[in-house]
Amino acid sequence: MRFATRVNNCADGELLLLSRDGVRGMPMGARWPTLLHAITQWDALMDDAAALSVTLEAGGGDTIDYGGLLAPLPRTWQWLDGSAFANHGALMQKAFNHPPIETDLPLMYQGMSHQFLASHENVALPTEADLIDFEGEFAIVTDDVPMGCSAVDAMDHIRLILLINDWSLRAVAPAEMKTGFGWIQAKPACSAAPIAITPDELGDRWRNGRVCLPLRVAVNGAWFGHPSGEGMDYGFHDLIAHAARTRQLCAGTIIGSGTVSDPDFERVGSTCISERRAIEMITQGKPVTPFLQFGDHVRMTAGTDVSLFGEISQIVTAFRADFDRYESARVSKSVIL
Amino acid sequence: MRFATRVNNCADGELLLLSRDGVRGMPMGARWPTLLHAITQWDALMDDAAALSVTLEAGGGDTIDYGGLLAPLPRTWQWLDGSAFANHGALMQKAFNHPPIETDLPLMYQGMSHQFLASHENVALPTEADLIDFEGEFAIVTDDVPMGCSAVDAMDHIRLILLINDWSLRAVAPAEMKTGFGWIQAKPACSAAPIAITPDELGDRWRNGRVCLPLRVAVNGAWFGHPSGEGMDYGFHDLIAHAARTRQLCAGTIIGSGTVSDPDFERVGSTCISERRAIEMITQGKPVTPFLQFGDHVRMTAGTDVSLFGEISQIVTAFRADFDRYESARVSKSVIL
Repeated sequence: MRFATRVNNCADGELLLLSRDGVRGMPMGARWPTLLHAITQWDALMDDAAALSVTLEAGGGDTIDYGGLLAPLPRTWQWLDGSAFANHGALMQKAFNHPPIETDLPLMYQGMSHQFLASHENVALPTEADLIDFEGEFAIVTDDVPMGCSAVDAMDHIRLILLINDWSLRAVAPAEMKTGFGWIQAKPACSAAPIAITPDELGDRWRNGRVCLPLRVAVNGAWFGHPSGEGMDYGFHDLIAHAARTRQLCAGTIIGSGTVSDPDFERVGSTCISERRAIEMITQGKPVTPFLQFGDHVRMTAGTDVSLFGEISQIVTAFRADFDRYESARVSKSVIL
Repeated sequence: MRFATRVNNCADGELLLLSRDGVRGMPMGARWPTLLHAITQWDALMDDAAALSVTLEAGGGDTIDYGGLLAPLPRTWQWLDGSAFANHGALMQKAFNHPPIETDLPLMYQGMSHQFLASHENVALPTEADLIDFEGEFAIVTDDVPMGCSAVDAMDHIRLILLINDWSLRAVAPAEMKTGFGWIQAKPACSAAPIAITPDELGDRWRNGRVCLPLRVAVNGAWFGHPSGEGMDYGFHDLIAHAARTRQLCAGTIIGSGTVSDPDFERVGSTCISERRAIEMITQGKPVTPFLQFGDHVRMTAGTDVSLFGEISQIVTAFRADFDRYESARVSKSVIL
């Protein structure tokens, strides 16, 4: 199944079921107003979606206006972002002489979850001096996971898969990391591709809790990288079990893979500027690729079939010039729920 | 105003207004079903609460059953916990030879916000071997805060004050901190005292964005500490401005002070075991006070007037023995929203 969320007068938007080609869609109806609600009753949702799907594949529903779609979960209760590609960390350490991170557990921090930007929305940030970067990631959405859930059992709690851009501010990140407290200022709101898919949509490209597809990044229209999600050192089920050791995870929890990365970087590139700069440091003696400037455009897709997740296609803008959008978003959130 | 949240068939509970003596209360009614909703429309809420308050202070409403109260916000979108008492950090560093944390900014991490335990609820954790500890904190709740909000402007976004116990697992915390990613396993769900108060309820004990009241902790009925919230090195308005530099804060954001701590610890004690052990290390050469065991009881209040926040009074239990409660909570959350 492929789900999307359409803008309406509620902060959580309206849940849609999409056709397999991503062209048409239908609202899931009054029983399933939002994805955040629907994911709490997964089996019943699947029954209703299966019935609707027959209508959709027979040509029912309406053509989807992707410009009217929000993130699949415009907000949720919990966003836990891993860093499960050891290759990414190893490159960063080698390039910048960081001490290796000593841990035999998955790396994970809790990030802001009350706002996921829509795939086409401008990304308004305070200043280029923060060194604006993107991070291409796959992510999964869980239903309710009990505390102490094993990695094996966790596989059944992976309900949806997302494509995420985890915006990162590199001038701030090292100082925050050094405190040991994780990131607040270095991690503003993430963006999400418009379509959330069930794992079965991936067929054999969903293996061992990993999305075995290239994550394709282009900056200002030029190829930047297409490493595969296959190379995670921990699968998403492992990340769930790690997170659930001392807490239950609520339905709607999003868990991220961290920057998708591949040791064959000379061929497949990177999904963040920072890693490319690390590679340049190692291979050329100095970083060359600049961080983003206001007006720059970042596009992310996965695989070759854009109808899988849709695309993230955003321009980075100056926050102050864009202040009205924030103010209006703030006001509309205050009026409705 | 003093607000509380009563259990009903919704995950967010039912919003109540309490009388000034904390004895009686009334539902805020259909316009204000939950605190998480109400805080998005603060001025209108205050108008209606003022009207209801007249009825309450004239003897209206019903006697409150504190056993039926949840946390004021049983769940919310964002929990940002500071560590604003430099004395606490300094003691920990001195006792355990940690390198000092190099930063000229407030310390802050994002913690789990999808579950705040009720003040009387058992605290079910996997194992005593995790070294179970409490942290007494004051916290504030914001309405919508725009990105880039100044510390001065932030003062007006402080809508409610809470008393929080930030449960912490000391065997896990240092390893997670060393990764730089902050804490996941070391920080299970926090607990909250039942009453959320507006800052004016504190009178002159609300000064410069600080709660100038002793936070009183007792373990198994014995005094443990009563340091004042006055000694924060950053006020709550500073913490808001720090958090809002690169993100807007949604209404319902909770920001914590971190462990309340005072350099005059010989007289006023501590609000967490770990700090007391650090003091013992410094003054006696070794830590003496044990971490918590299953069956231990922790009580927290603030000031001398228990009707201000009410009390946190909880027993730590083994998660597996308590598994049914988790399972039933999980199922009920899946059925309603």
